[in-house]
Amino acid sequence: MDTDHTNSTNNKRTSEEIYKQACELIPGGVSRNTIFHQPYPHYISHANGCYATDINGIQRLDFGNNMAALIHGHAHPDIVNAVIEQIRKGTAYTMATEAEVLYAQMLCDRTPSFEKIRFVNSGTEAVMAMIKTARAYTGKPKIAKAEGAYHGTYDFAEVSQTANPTNWGNVNQPNSVPVANGTPSSVLNDVLIFPYNDIERTLAILDNNANEIACVIIDPIPHRVGLMEGNSQFIEAIYKWTRKNGSLLAFDEVVTYRANYGGAQKNYAVKPDLTALGKIIGGGFPVGAFAGRSDIMKVLDPREIKLLFPHSGTFSANPVTMTAGRIAMEMFDKEAILKLNTLTEKARGQINEAIKIADVPVSISGTASMFRLHLKTSTPMSYREAYQNGETKYLINEMLDYLFFNEKIMMINTLTCMFSTVMTQKEIDMISQALLNMFKRYREQLYTLQK
Amino acid sequence: MDTDHTNSTNNKRTSEEIYKQACELIPGGVSRNTIFHQPYPHYISHANGCYATDINGIQRLDFGNNMAALIHGHAHPDIVNAVIEQIRKGTAYTMATEAEVLYAQMLCDRTPSFEKIRFVNSGTEAVMAMIKTARAYTGKPKIAKAEGAYHGTYDFAEVSQTANPTNWGNVNQPNSVPVANGTPSSVLNDVLIFPYNDIERTLAILDNNANEIACVIIDPIPHRVGLMEGNSQFIEAIYKWTRKNGSLLAFDEVVTYRANYGGAQKNYAVKPDLTALGKIIGGGFPVGAFAGRSDIMKVLDPREIKLLFPHSGTFSANPVTMTAGRIAMEMFDKEAILKLNTLTEKARGQINEAIKIADVPVSISGTASMFRLHLKTSTPMSYREAYQNGETKYLINEMLDYLFFNEKIMMINTLTCMFSTVMTQKEIDMISQALLNMFKRYREQLYTLQK
Repeated sequence: MDTDHTNSTNNKRTSEEIYKQACELIPGGVSRNTIFHQPYPHYISHANGCYATDINGIQRLDFGNNMAALIHGHAHPDIVNAVIEQIRKGTAYTMATEAEVLYAQMLCDRTPSFEKIRFVNSGTEAVMAMIKTARAYTGKPKIAKAEGAYHGTYDFAEVSQTANPTNWGNVNQPNSVPVANGTPSSVLNDVLIFPYNDIERTLAILDNNANEIACVIIDPIPHRVGLMEGNSQFIEAIYKWTRKNGSLLAFDEVVTYRANYGGAQKNYAVKPDLTALGKIIGGGFPVGAFAGRSDIMKVLDPREIKLLFPHSGTFSANPVTMTAGRIAMEMFDKEAILKLNTLTEKARGQINEAIKIADVPVSISGTASMFRLHLKTSTPMSYREAYQNGETKYLINEMLDYLFFNEKIMMINTLTCMFSTVMTQKEIDMISQALLNMFKRYREQLYTLQK
Repeated sequence: MDTDHTNSTNNKRTSEEIYKQACELIPGGVSRNTIFHQPYPHYISHANGCYATDINGIQRLDFGNNMAALIHGHAHPDIVNAVIEQIRKGTAYTMATEAEVLYAQMLCDRTPSFEKIRFVNSGTEAVMAMIKTARAYTGKPKIAKAEGAYHGTYDFAEVSQTANPTNWGNVNQPNSVPVANGTPSSVLNDVLIFPYNDIERTLAILDNNANEIACVIIDPIPHRVGLMEGNSQFIEAIYKWTRKNGSLLAFDEVVTYRANYGGAQKNYAVKPDLTALGKIIGGGFPVGAFAGRSDIMKVLDPREIKLLFPHSGTFSANPVTMTAGRIAMEMFDKEAILKLNTLTEKARGQINEAIKIADVPVSISGTASMFRLHLKTSTPMSYREAYQNGETKYLINEMLDYLFFNEKIMMINTLTCMFSTVMTQKEIDMISQALLNMFKRYREQLYTLQK
């Protein structure tokens, strides 16, 4: 009862062979389109720190960090040891765990707007629960979100995430564009779309539906929009609007909680009413959380005479995730964040140098421990400016392949890098040199793209 | 950097003390209302096999199994060892893993209707993705579901899960009752409610919306409805109706996949088009999956020219869950299922004996490795018959407390038991005797309830 449980077949197979089997079983061969790759994705063997090794034994420098979810890279020994200790005691119970309480305390201590918190299993679940909380508290049906912003796969939250020039409509009143075929039209009617960082247009759109909006969702550094920072005036204007109109300001910090001690929200003068979390707070394990004002979160309290939002989940707050997450965040203290952000700032500087040296029409956006490259001279200010057409996407895929195969570097499929605390100047030099090589190699194609 | 990461405070605290802190941080003090308990829930220390030990060192026989999610009880050594091996290699990557493919193969081999499968992080996500798949394939907006059936917390899926006599309306056309305050009315309009196992009424309700229904969702043994089996004529009638009306039959087997080798669906002559999974298939770790016909699941394939349902997830198909799940299901083979179901059948027999000996108005429903007690003489045939009013719930809570404190037995809060493969005749005798004691003790109150 122990020798048969191998995690691979006896004969070592190639990625192509495994993928062939995968395609017989899984639509597209993967459960996550973010790791889909043609003609086939590469299969992992193991990973440690900031390096990931595929089944052919090729080691790569990993700036994907499981789509920004690993703040200390892979298999950090402190997390591994604590999780092993927990797993030997069980992974999930029909009883309460102190691990949940200790972690809730840490996160609430860290971020002033987190008066109360609840854990779920993914960022998708976190955003869904946050929206349902806002609706339950306000009694209002609609939400407003930025065009192009990714907030998980809950259908209300994903509207217009992939809007394109053929369907996005007038920027003064962007269309609510479904991501999935068959999205009920009622869902589209209950979601308002605004252009990120555009105060005037956004307020006009909100004003048109002033009495119906449960919450306005803001990712303070939205990756898919273009990884630009929400500017203070924009955030403050929306905050003020929500105060005046009985609505809530809801931050999606699933990705951006890494940006500052207590999240990107600490960079603004105003505080969100609710925040959704995920990614790094799981320490490498499935996680989501939503937190916010006590009076709002009270809708979830089963001790209330009328429970407005009954909420549960089989694996929510499981002690493996709670333990891994707490240790990850304990190590991601003010000093670690400062060090990581400084290192990434240096990387952005070196890459800007590389852009100049190679003399290519490329720009870089991002802040804190994140950056994204854009194949145009000036950094895009909006989703529509950052939008990649077919030709651009084609070139990006070529460049990603070049980095993956020739430079042995993994990036996120938008040409984005998410740094981890285990990186050093050595890795910064590696990515800078690799990008310089890439810029030189694709210089002509990059210029052709501008025409 | 290693001594500080303890999972508890230095001074051992009581459950009451931990819960006091929890209530300052978490609405109701828990992230999952299923483990909420007044005046406070009890906190776990560790668990092994079918026994769970709280922080006071009190050991209890566990029939909760984390809300039916643990088919081999706690900390099974084969799962623990394999997971530890995986964790040392990393827990999640921006690359594909063979663990996902091996597990997909096993599940697809097991259940003929699983032509293709995708993994997600929870049962809630599985049902949501299944519904979105059905909508994307059919282009239709509505779903139909049974009154009282629990299908996770996606707002469309949870409609009428907690319907009660004040709002459920005429059984010929049950109202669509929101679970959460602020549920958009459009969500309610897009969900049709039917009475489980009632062919005539259900078909009439479906006929009234014949052209708009993407899928009819059926839990073949719905716990919250009353844990009665879906009868074959009912399932077949719905199957036939969906064939005639361009709709899909979608099974929720998140709980019931344990019922037979390949799921409860193997008990019927017809096959569902889609199935949602969760609970036991994670081997104790967060999991969900949805599977079904190749031509339908194709909506998820990014290789298609027009991708109808783009779908991803940061932690979906992570190799920890894939490994734990595969090993758990490998051990849950035909022989293990037969043994477990036979043992549970014996338990149901002994408990029926206890009901007779104590002469109490109690009945028992359930099949395979599950049972639920009802505080009435005849087993309820519908959600409305099984519905517990305030007095009944009060007595159930008293009985659960009696079992927990006096008999050292944990059950699910509906008086439900979910068995695990590590149980033996000894544990069957323990639960039978405990229930006999309970029936005798509460006999008078049970009779008072019938008036």
